[in-house]
Amino acid sequence: MIYGVHPVLETVRAGRRRVEEIYLARGHSQAPDLVTQIQDAGFPVTQVSANEIISLAGSPHHQGVAARVGAFPYADFTEILSSDETVPGPILILDEVQDPGNLGNVIRSAECLGATAIVIAKDRSVPLTPAVEKAAAGASAHMRIVRVVNLVRAITQLKNSGFWVYGTHQHGRDTIYSADLTGKTAFVLGSEGRGMRRLVRETCDNVVSIPMVGHVESLNVSQTATIVLAETLRQRLMKNVTKD
Amino acid sequence: MIYGVHPVLETVRAGRRRVEEIYLARGHSQAPDLVTQIQDAGFPVTQVSANEIISLAGSPHHQGVAARVGAFPYADFTEILSSDETVPGPILILDEVQDPGNLGNVIRSAECLGATAIVIAKDRSVPLTPAVEKAAAGASAHMRIVRVVNLVRAITQLKNSGFWVYGTHQHGRDTIYSADLTGKTAFVLGSEGRGMRRLVRETCDNVVSIPMVGHVESLNVSQTATIVLAETLRQRLMKNVTKD
Repeated sequence: MIYGVHPVLETVRAGRRRVEEIYLARGHSQAPDLVTQIQDAGFPVTQVSANEIISLAGSPHHQGVAARVGAFPYADFTEILSSDETVPGPILILDEVQDPGNLGNVIRSAECLGATAIVIAKDRSVPLTPAVEKAAAGASAHMRIVRVVNLVRAITQLKNSGFWVYGTHQHGRDTIYSADLTGKTAFVLGSEGRGMRRLVRETCDNVVSIPMVGHVESLNVSQTATIVLAETLRQRLMKNVTKD
Repeated sequence: MIYGVHPVLETVRAGRRRVEEIYLARGHSQAPDLVTQIQDAGFPVTQVSANEIISLAGSPHHQGVAARVGAFPYADFTEILSSDETVPGPILILDEVQDPGNLGNVIRSAECLGATAIVIAKDRSVPLTPAVEKAAAGASAHMRIVRVVNLVRAITQLKNSGFWVYGTHQHGRDTIYSADLTGKTAFVLGSEGRGMRRLVRETCDNVVSIPMVGHVESLNVSQTATIVLAETLRQRLMKNVTKD
């Protein structure tokens, strides 16, 4: 099940995932866009009560809509590694991100700011739950998300495929502003609280920091992702590597 | 009441707000930093059960600690306007931000990235609730937050005090990267979904956009705040206006 206007609408739009049934809450004002697109696309729609949709969604944050869908279509890592794009969008590698809201927000930034893919570890990260997809506000329907068994191995594979892999840490050697982010680039982002694990950090080509000036020197993983992705896009737009 | 390790710890550290009583949940492993600092500062501590702390905090996300504190110390707008700093940190003006998590994340970014103050409307925004402070992870204890009756009037006052006020919108005239953000700068950020109200937008000196390249062209207000603040800090560091 997925729920919320944007997750359902973007899943329908992206067309990458089987949609079995869409549930609309009776008496709940739905986005007209959503209803029209669902009807035009010929998806089966069931009207249910407000209580039924809460129990279907497993959350009160359903916005009057839920959908029974196929499993999340995780992407294939070898396909991403073997892409022949000269400068693909940056790749994010998440080390142990556990909070669904944070992961959802990372996906949202990644989609808006042109990331190619997000890599998460099978055992150490929250998977693509309905709450993650709700926080991603539809972005997960378009973003390539890869699950790997071993992050260190994934980083090595990226390096072998010509990516420059930056770890991110408050005390990184260079700042993201002095790093050249216009080539094949991947970023490793640590977990809330603990940061990157040692071996993960040591496998990176370099560790970069985001300059900060406050008393509380810590941004969450989604804020860090937002800044490194925006800076990457800025550098590429300035060099005309990426079209706006 | 405030709750969570960082909100309580930073409130104690900042020393701007009356702390009446701190509650620690028995059998809950607390951050050693927190306990030491509370004890050193001589605050009254009460040990309570896990259930009592949930009812005190009004949330399961208490991390074993809650505190009974004085009212949130909102800052005085005229004091901020009459600051004699040549280039103060940027000011954020939030138009109708309703989501506590989003407001908390805006405060966190603002504190880490050197904002001077955040201006919110008395009637149209979520106030500084315990949930907002939890999401801000302690940053609200250090950030100056101003409540005003009328945002349009506040924008006019900022302009009269020499600030250049940028609205932010997907279809802004310039991008944040072509705007000069190294002088006295304020940003107006619209609400989730509806953006800035018309009169608020028309009162700005200019409207700028954040370049995006995805299918889902929308970042939430906290992601927008993070990007405009990071870009402001970047431009100032490059010009040596702000020390890192």
